[in-house]
Amino acid sequence: MNAMDVVVVGSLGLDTIETKFDRKEDILGGSVSYACAAAAFFARTGMVGVAGTDFPQAHLDLFKRFGIDIEGLAIAQGQTFRWSGVYEDDMINRRTLSTCLNVFAEFMPELPASYRTAPYLLLGNIAPALQLHVLDQIRSPRFVLADTMDLWINIANEPLQQVIRRVDMLALNDGEARLLTGEHNLTTCARKILAMGPSYVVIKKGEHGAMLVTRQGMYLIPAFPVDNVVDPTGAGDTFAGGFLGSLSQQPVIDDKSVCKALLHGSVVASFGVEAFSLGRLETLRKDEIQSRLTALKAMIAIA
Amino acid sequence: MNAMDVVVVGSLGLDTIETKFDRKEDILGGSVSYACAAAAFFARTGMVGVAGTDFPQAHLDLFKRFGIDIEGLAIAQGQTFRWSGVYEDDMINRRTLSTCLNVFAEFMPELPASYRTAPYLLLGNIAPALQLHVLDQIRSPRFVLADTMDLWINIANEPLQQVIRRVDMLALNDGEARLLTGEHNLTTCARKILAMGPSYVVIKKGEHGAMLVTRQGMYLIPAFPVDNVVDPTGAGDTFAGGFLGSLSQQPVIDDKSVCKALLHGSVVASFGVEAFSLGRLETLRKDEIQSRLTALKAMIAIA
Repeated sequence: MNAMDVVVVGSLGLDTIETKFDRKEDILGGSVSYACAAAAFFARTGMVGVAGTDFPQAHLDLFKRFGIDIEGLAIAQGQTFRWSGVYEDDMINRRTLSTCLNVFAEFMPELPASYRTAPYLLLGNIAPALQLHVLDQIRSPRFVLADTMDLWINIANEPLQQVIRRVDMLALNDGEARLLTGEHNLTTCARKILAMGPSYVVIKKGEHGAMLVTRQGMYLIPAFPVDNVVDPTGAGDTFAGGFLGSLSQQPVIDDKSVCKALLHGSVVASFGVEAFSLGRLETLRKDEIQSRLTALKAMIAIA
Repeated sequence: MNAMDVVVVGSLGLDTIETKFDRKEDILGGSVSYACAAAAFFARTGMVGVAGTDFPQAHLDLFKRFGIDIEGLAIAQGQTFRWSGVYEDDMINRRTLSTCLNVFAEFMPELPASYRTAPYLLLGNIAPALQLHVLDQIRSPRFVLADTMDLWINIANEPLQQVIRRVDMLALNDGEARLLTGEHNLTTCARKILAMGPSYVVIKKGEHGAMLVTRQGMYLIPAFPVDNVVDPTGAGDTFAGGFLGSLSQQPVIDDKSVCKALLHGSVVASFGVEAFSLGRLETLRKDEIQSRLTALKAMIAIA
């Protein structure tokens, strides 16, 4: 049993997704799927999640092909979490049609022994109480990244504040940053979040990239302009997973290495949206990541 | 009579603007005001536009303080063009409340002799037929930038196509690029526009920066994250004017110098939105531009 570099906890689900181009039913989704697949390009990655007894074996096999360790994936009696949504024509805004928690309603993440010493932890977007439960099981991690969403800011603010105090990086989108802090301006939002505890705040802006704010500075992380967005679902999770996987391979953690790892995350995410589910990541090669990274760097080498 | 580096043609108006923070009545506006003020930080700039007899002398004095040459500014019998709009809470989307063309309805731009040899020409967002009329008066310019908008794409498509064939750079926002080309994807849009004639296409994304597409490559031009957006009106014009003023001072025109000049435009535009009208540009110093430019470069020096 190998020790993990990165452990990811999050939702695991079967998604039904409709875009103006296509509709897919019960495809593999969930934050933990996207984040683990992305992290596994860079690091030994362990998955913590729950699936129902209806969860297809093919998906478990796919996780293994990605090199993801699934010892932390529980199979519970009942149906797998299901989400269904439809994207507007801009392929950015979306409307949720249905959410069936199923076995996810009773999810209480338990980390296998081999995960508890993992130096890098990604707390995907789940209830803050569960994120805290995972934090309590992990021994002195080197770097913890938490993702969150508007729902938890609204209905679980107090436990979320506890999470934020205990993590190194908080990732959230612009609207969530405003909701969390009550400020409009994004740099003000980010500074308020830094004052709550984390050393790094990443404000995600989808196709427009992300902004990293640290105690030392502010950085603009570009998104690679994708020619053909097929399905943006999971892009934020892929970004986070690719980032943390890459960061785990950096010798030091500082603004420079965090930026470098965020660029990796951005590039992997740009591939992820080119197909439904993990379709594009499944065939993605390391040299493709490298060559798009080189192209992206050239696009910002303008100073 | 000094020869001009840059000549700008565009609208000149008195704007009434409402944001969630404030409301201003009959303040100096119009694309030519913003663009000339920005260009004048870098180059000898001549203004081509029309005002009514009600146009305040104070505004003419302000233009002179910016160092703008106003020989090309006609004063016509009647009222100055007026525009009124209200910004949504996001300070990005806006609704036009009223547009009174007044003397602008009869505008037929005539260039003074000293403007006709200007090497750099900015065709601000006015009717394509007027842009063509200006193009016909200028002798072998070195670089022509045209701005446009959805209105002309819809109602004056044929003359607009003629403009596009004759300019070096077209600047437009993402929605306009999609409307013009019938394509959704922005890189596809840009390549289609390149095929229409220009060597450079700039797709503006407001607070998210801009994308430059050329025959050689693609570049992401960042926007400086502004803490306090007071009024985004004219930001695109300030960006264009600052760009062209800066470009006119570059020894060569290539992807590298165009990117450099676009960064200058981006920085000047980021100051412009910090106050209504030309309020912030009026007090802006060259060293402030330089220091924000240095900060912006540091934010993208992440590769």
